[in-house]
Amino acid sequence: MPTGRRSSFERRNCLDRDSTGWPANCIDPGAVPLGAGGGQQIAAGVARLGGHGADAARPSPVSEAGGPVQELIAELHQRHLGNTDGRVASYIPELASSDPRQFGIAVAMCNGFVYEAGDARAPFTAQSISKAIVYGLALADHGRDRVLQSIGVEPSGESFNSIVFDERHNRPFNPMVNAGAIAATSLILGKNAEERLARILEIFTHFVGHPVSIDERVYRSEAATGHRNRAIAYLELNAGMIEGSAEEHLDLYFKQCSILVTARDLAVMAATLANDGVNPRTGARALPAANVRDVLSVMSTCGMYDYAGEWQFSVGLPAKSGVSGGIMAVLPGQLGIGVFSPRLDDSGNSVRGLAICKELSQSLKLHLLDHRGRERPAIRRAYRGTEVRSKRVRCRADLELLDRNGQEIAVYELQGDLNFANSEALIRRILSELRCVTHVMLDGERVSSVDAISCKLLVGLARTLKQREVWFDLVVRHPAGSGETLYALAALGNPAGTNEIDVALELCEDRVLRAARGAADDEAAPLPLQEVDVMHQLGNDELEILSRYLAPAGFDRHEYLMREGDDADRLYLLLAGAVDVEVKLGSAGDRHRVSTIEAGTTVGELALFAGGKRTADVVAASKVRSLVLHRRQFEALAAAEPLIWSKLLRAVGHSMADRLRRANAEIRALSR
Amino acid sequence: MPTGRRSSFERRNCLDRDSTGWPANCIDPGAVPLGAGGGQQIAAGVARLGGHGADAARPSPVSEAGGPVQELIAELHQRHLGNTDGRVASYIPELASSDPRQFGIAVAMCNGFVYEAGDARAPFTAQSISKAIVYGLALADHGRDRVLQSIGVEPSGESFNSIVFDERHNRPFNPMVNAGAIAATSLILGKNAEERLARILEIFTHFVGHPVSIDERVYRSEAATGHRNRAIAYLELNAGMIEGSAEEHLDLYFKQCSILVTARDLAVMAATLANDGVNPRTGARALPAANVRDVLSVMSTCGMYDYAGEWQFSVGLPAKSGVSGGIMAVLPGQLGIGVFSPRLDDSGNSVRGLAICKELSQSLKLHLLDHRGRERPAIRRAYRGTEVRSKRVRCRADLELLDRNGQEIAVYELQGDLNFANSEALIRRILSELRCVTHVMLDGERVSSVDAISCKLLVGLARTLKQREVWFDLVVRHPAGSGETLYALAALGNPAGTNEIDVALELCEDRVLRAARGAADDEAAPLPLQEVDVMHQLGNDELEILSRYLAPAGFDRHEYLMREGDDADRLYLLLAGAVDVEVKLGSAGDRHRVSTIEAGTTVGELALFAGGKRTADVVAASKVRSLVLHRRQFEALAAAEPLIWSKLLRAVGHSMADRLRRANAEIRALSR
Repeated sequence: MPTGRRSSFERRNCLDRDSTGWPANCIDPGAVPLGAGGGQQIAAGVARLGGHGADAARPSPVSEAGGPVQELIAELHQRHLGNTDGRVASYIPELASSDPRQFGIAVAMCNGFVYEAGDARAPFTAQSISKAIVYGLALADHGRDRVLQSIGVEPSGESFNSIVFDERHNRPFNPMVNAGAIAATSLILGKNAEERLARILEIFTHFVGHPVSIDERVYRSEAATGHRNRAIAYLELNAGMIEGSAEEHLDLYFKQCSILVTARDLAVMAATLANDGVNPRTGARALPAANVRDVLSVMSTCGMYDYAGEWQFSVGLPAKSGVSGGIMAVLPGQLGIGVFSPRLDDSGNSVRGLAICKELSQSLKLHLLDHRGRERPAIRRAYRGTEVRSKRVRCRADLELLDRNGQEIAVYELQGDLNFANSEALIRRILSELRCVTHVMLDGERVSSVDAISCKLLVGLARTLKQREVWFDLVVRHPAGSGETLYALAALGNPAGTNEIDVALELCEDRVLRAARGAADDEAAPLPLQEVDVMHQLGNDELEILSRYLAPAGFDRHEYLMREGDDADRLYLLLAGAVDVEVKLGSAGDRHRVSTIEAGTTVGELALFAGGKRTADVVAASKVRSLVLHRRQFEALAAAEPLIWSKLLRAVGHSMADRLRRANAEIRALSR
Repeated sequence: MPTGRRSSFERRNCLDRDSTGWPANCIDPGAVPLGAGGGQQIAAGVARLGGHGADAARPSPVSEAGGPVQELIAELHQRHLGNTDGRVASYIPELASSDPRQFGIAVAMCNGFVYEAGDARAPFTAQSISKAIVYGLALADHGRDRVLQSIGVEPSGESFNSIVFDERHNRPFNPMVNAGAIAATSLILGKNAEERLARILEIFTHFVGHPVSIDERVYRSEAATGHRNRAIAYLELNAGMIEGSAEEHLDLYFKQCSILVTARDLAVMAATLANDGVNPRTGARALPAANVRDVLSVMSTCGMYDYAGEWQFSVGLPAKSGVSGGIMAVLPGQLGIGVFSPRLDDSGNSVRGLAICKELSQSLKLHLLDHRGRERPAIRRAYRGTEVRSKRVRCRADLELLDRNGQEIAVYELQGDLNFANSEALIRRILSELRCVTHVMLDGERVSSVDAISCKLLVGLARTLKQREVWFDLVVRHPAGSGETLYALAALGNPAGTNEIDVALELCEDRVLRAARGAADDEAAPLPLQEVDVMHQLGNDELEILSRYLAPAGFDRHEYLMREGDDADRLYLLLAGAVDVEVKLGSAGDRHRVSTIEAGTTVGELALFAGGKRTADVVAASKVRSLVLHRRQFEALAAAEPLIWSKLLRAVGHSMADRLRRANAEIRALSR
């Protein structure tokens, strides 16, 4: 992409190409086939250097499309490039030969986007970082309790290659020291060594989003010189801490340590842990959700060798480092960080890696214990039946009743993930606002998940409201998309039996109206003409005259009174039943109910004013009886009975002015 | 409160009394004076047992007003009442005499509400729990760097009364072992022992929300038998780790350990830490925000004696326990837990306390590393200028232009706390949706905070958009309430110079219209009558006739055209300038602009239809020239020129039908 000065048009045009494709940006060409046109965006959306051996003098690239975050990462890389403290690990001969100048940073967001700077695509062996992944696989294979029997979770205070064990429980202290890691590897299932290795490679593949391979030279070097690890394995075998062939477990262990990854891979692995075990770029699950927390817990107490306390104090993210110079760090729910720079400090952690993590934690405010403000409230908006109405157009008398009694209906629009803290506040607020309320409705449309405890609390709320004789309904449009729990909730507390809040609101209005009217009015008989709102100003003689211009019209349910695009040439006076006004949404032709108009009101007023075309469909929602005033009859009325004609016209105008005022009030309420 | 069967009315009535007062429920009668009528709710809102010596057979109370959460806590207490494992601490003689049957639980929410069960108000000495608070005070007195010189942050792997030190740095390992705690106490400032003690008591007072006192018998018992602590202090003095009088520091240390607290106090202390250092019940700051994270970090690595790894694995909350049987645990941003039960396990942690924390963490899903779903998105809703319009009522030609060009205006409604992860996503989305966009507006009305990094990213976004020649505006209504950062942002990126999104939207519409019209139209001359929308159907002769019925009317800015409650007896045809339609909100008489109506349109249509009263004020927003049609002239027109009259009436009706359709479309957009 040219970086020189361009015209505004060129910039705009270029931007559009880069930016509109961002979901495609997120897809690794190595992992997932790309749709047409998606390929070229990748290099533009993500800064990449690739290759090895970053020269300290070379400036790091800044991707224009990456925006301010990309600039920030690139600037950070640039600033730490000159830090050459520390020494490359030498305890494995092959590691000592790695290029100390290499330096890559990657930050992967939980939405799948990856920012990179420097040698973020330079490969190196995972080493101890593999311990976290293989521990996860052991947990997935055997469950927490069985793994806890074999491997503890206490930081040992000893170095990573310690041969000290937790004597009391006859197990290694934790899975992040070599003894614990070998024990974890020994737990990996498979009918033979090949299958076990394949399973380890497979979980790595899911974590990084593409196939992984083993650095054979590093593996052979480790296998040839890993005497201490061999001693540890045999001590464990001797003590009954591991079972089977020590040599097979050791060979697997050396291989897992030699799996090749990049800083970018580490960031995606970390983001996968941050994303509850689902790789955010491929969408594939790498680790069962139930095991993610345990891996993160152990990383946070034991992941950084004997630097755990300081790390938690100054960085505060679950992390794992390896002697090849990699560090991966996880901010649950948000992002993963991968850094690679081979020079190590005395604790065995990458010097630049530590510095980058410290600075990222501080400048991006990532420390787990940093104040992130209060819990997101579960209530997005609350309103009463006086403020927002169902889309049913009711006759004036009913509207006035609802003006008085709509307070009895309390609607709470929920949002996001419901957990203990925000559902506690939700429930307490509902219970504190019950004065005058006879109907409580929760609109769950925008809820993304409900955990077990919130579900339990909501069930408790439903019970409490029932005891207090308050109608309770939870309306969820897409229960399947929100987890089984929500579905269970919806089934439990949905007396209206609908998944649309508007329909539920209408039902509550009906109940409130029925109670206010003091009597059940079931299938009402057709109204006499004078009961139609716009007829109120006409005397009996005038009604008698007018009725000569009207023709009766009946419709069965689902029959159309008018369709979008029809000439607006008639006004209906509804005497019985109700009609739905519907519009089509989008190109798929989904239908959306704009409103329901019921007996006692009119539909199609436009006919009286300006003709034109209908802008919506009107369809009978029940059996409908009406009187229709055709445009030509209307004109005839104007000529023959100008006084009646003008009264009618004014009444219809008045009714529209009234609806306009109500619509504006609703816009104000919704804009809150 | 009677618990027998009552009528529905009684239940409702009783509920109202309990529930409407919940903010008052949150106020501790001991801490803050209560408003009238608040007192009696306390016992109802919060279950309390008080007193000592809970009998295992006594059922725990269930408060009706507390709802499902209260039931849950009470049930938990009840279920663990029978657990009598462990032994009361004996190393301080006075502690050995405490009643082992005591058992209290409290959970304090960050919104200030406290749930309690059992002996939640039984006093006991804070012991080691005081270490966390005094460490915070030392940090506040000296800053992180100075305190780190004297006290490390690494878990020692040794027991709490260890005399092993971090030799490399010549300091105690961490502030949660006795050696570190004595060093922290030695750092507390004050001109003499009395003042230093007063400062320690003061910070406790702020943390618990009421004055605290020292249990003199426990203090004397500790002072008389604390030989090992005395040895530790003198070793530290000898090594130069502490300065001043070892005896004075020790005396203060014994006193801080003997401060009396309750499980309820512990919960509130924990909630204060969870609430960024502000006591959520009193609203008073107990600890500077800058020091809270460090206290929590050390609690999470070193707070539970040598049970740190297991605690982090199975409970996962920063916590501190004491040998008197108390545990406090913190879920940042959400809540604090306090438990008291004197029987201890081998690690020195309360047996029931541990069990309660484990179960609460699991059943309420409180583990810090538990998946809490994705970050709350920063965007609450996004819309284009085609979907939502400013409240300015424009002439039909302009509305049609906006139908075509409104896509150029992109508005993003923000919400909540902006941090790195959600502002990264926000910025990337904006940059990806720039096709055709010339104006980007951020509505910051619902933003509660913006941290430094999001501020930096937003500044970067503003710069990027400027480079791309896209107008950018951030609209914030209450910048003072959202922190200095937001204020700085608002000042930086608010070219519209307004704090109302609607005004900014109107300005963008004006800019888009001007660009679309292709020429600047500054102070326009008054329109000829035929340019008024509703006149379009009239020929020149008809306009000539109609104009005889119209009277000119001019208004200066701020002059009223009509007031709420006036008779609706005239229609204005606006020829130049614009008018604001305003309503009063609430009893304070705040004025809210409903819409602005500009030249080429009409105002006061109701006059033509049904009379009645005006429902809003209409005030000139600029110098206004208009023609007015009085009702009596309208009637005269009807009699003399029925054809013109009916054309006018239909045109006004058509215009209202049009507005009603637009209003309904806006309601649909806002309901998303």
